[in-house]
Amino acid sequence: MSPTITDIRQAAERIRPHAHRTPVMTCRSLDQRVGAQVFMKCENLQKVGAFKFRGACNAVFSLSPDEAARGVATHSSGNHAQALALAAAMRGIPAYIVMPRNAPAVKQAAVAGYGGIITLCEPTLAARESTLAEVVAATGAEVVHPYNDVRVIAGQGTAALELLADVPDLDVIMAPVGGGGLLSGTAIAARAVAPQIRVIAAEPAGADDAFRSLAARHIIPSVQPQTIADGLLTSLGDLTFPIIRDHVEQIVTVSEPAIVAAMKFVWERAKLVVEPSGVVPIAALWEEAIDLRGLRVGVILSGGNVGLEHLPWQQ
Amino acid sequence: MSPTITDIRQAAERIRPHAHRTPVMTCRSLDQRVGAQVFMKCENLQKVGAFKFRGACNAVFSLSPDEAARGVATHSSGNHAQALALAAAMRGIPAYIVMPRNAPAVKQAAVAGYGGIITLCEPTLAARESTLAEVVAATGAEVVHPYNDVRVIAGQGTAALELLADVPDLDVIMAPVGGGGLLSGTAIAARAVAPQIRVIAAEPAGADDAFRSLAARHIIPSVQPQTIADGLLTSLGDLTFPIIRDHVEQIVTVSEPAIVAAMKFVWERAKLVVEPSGVVPIAALWEEAIDLRGLRVGVILSGGNVGLEHLPWQQ
Repeated sequence: MSPTITDIRQAAERIRPHAHRTPVMTCRSLDQRVGAQVFMKCENLQKVGAFKFRGACNAVFSLSPDEAARGVATHSSGNHAQALALAAAMRGIPAYIVMPRNAPAVKQAAVAGYGGIITLCEPTLAARESTLAEVVAATGAEVVHPYNDVRVIAGQGTAALELLADVPDLDVIMAPVGGGGLLSGTAIAARAVAPQIRVIAAEPAGADDAFRSLAARHIIPSVQPQTIADGLLTSLGDLTFPIIRDHVEQIVTVSEPAIVAAMKFVWERAKLVVEPSGVVPIAALWEEAIDLRGLRVGVILSGGNVGLEHLPWQQ
Repeated sequence: MSPTITDIRQAAERIRPHAHRTPVMTCRSLDQRVGAQVFMKCENLQKVGAFKFRGACNAVFSLSPDEAARGVATHSSGNHAQALALAAAMRGIPAYIVMPRNAPAVKQAAVAGYGGIITLCEPTLAARESTLAEVVAATGAEVVHPYNDVRVIAGQGTAALELLADVPDLDVIMAPVGGGGLLSGTAIAARAVAPQIRVIAAEPAGADDAFRSLAARHIIPSVQPQTIADGLLTSLGDLTFPIIRDHVEQIVTVSEPAIVAAMKFVWERAKLVVEPSGVVPIAALWEEAIDLRGLRVGVILSGGNVGLEHLPWQQ
């Protein structure tokens, strides 16, 4: 069951009081470098520094009062955990976050800082899932999956809805793809609002399971991905894959050096702190993984959560 | 002769087709840290990465066709040079930029990249001024001073005008102060649009000539300033000083560690690349150089031009 454009429009209404309407930025020197007109939807400037807040917020505020009272739960060590914790705090309900014992202290502190109730577990997928099941059994909390959830996909689609409202005449809309929540929400929104728009995804060549899944017409899981883009390591879900299969024209893969070069350029010239995952579509333009010269290209800069102690272009 | 609010409103109309209307961003964790509601006017996202483009653009597009045909000129090794070069290129006229021979290659390249015509000179103020005089004698170009120019001050004031349009109920508006172009434009705009607003400036303690000038009621030149905020090294001008004297409530000084800490926090949490000079007002909140707790504080983040090879918080 896919979310519809109506779900996305309702999500936009629901999250409006809580989420930032992020700006769309342009950068003349970037346009010159890649030969296209690029419109960056700055989800790095979203709350918790990533589009993930949209989906988590929509899920939390979709719950009935009774459901909400029991709280929400997920297992995650990344942006989704922080997003869910903050959205729950805004509604005044508990967020139970299962995290692997080896999750960086800074990420645990971030979740706790947003009021999340952390349960640590062994760092295996089996332990994460069984621990989450225990937490849910004990609390009755509603599980909110990071991407394979209709409410989450609808929430993520609101970024594209805003982008197309601000820049209606795009030729192309691009998003990175990991689990596919952002990409599938983007595709549904874009197809409904601008039926002729081309929806193109970008993925690191070192984590190209979505590219291979689209070619094979079935989900190929991500196995031992190798990329600096640590938000794009997961496999597609059974909700996100069919949407991507039906609405995404192409998934292009990009090299690691292009990701780092594009990231540095965006920091230097557009003055935006973007994480490696967020810049992957720009990396595709950067190395001409696809020819979009002369076109108006909307790009969702998905997030900006990156440590500043060491940057990938530094020795 | 000070610019008026009418000059600033005309400047806003004049530069609208050329400049970015920069976003105003908020950051919950910053607010929690400093105990105020901070509204950041993101001039780091302005063209050439700094508010300087506003003033240069207003000056260039204020010229009559005859004046414009002879071009514009300045001596600068910083953001003003790039701003003037880009504004001139947009109008299709020459920009003659006098730069000291020891200006970093990257800054020379940036000016040349925007189409500026560079004349190198010895790295002294006398040589810069005499070389500029020679260029003007040869070309008839119009000199555009980086801050002591009515057209430039009016242009810089458009940032505050936009900020107050987006957030009308500010208690305080803050800007950094170097030569005083941004601060004096901000003060005129704010006083006219919101007469009860408090206009407060921030300055590095290691370059506190504006602080001392305001106390002494006359211009005290900047001598051997020592600060990481390299955009704030210059002295006030005879146009900017009286405006600041009459309209600015207070200039607060901030420590170098506070500048670095506030800069890192804005990068990490607000995801904005801001240069040290741009974050000086936030540093004032950071170390409670002034008590603005509980207030709604607009801050002009003046620019984002900073080298990414080494960052001040790195060993």
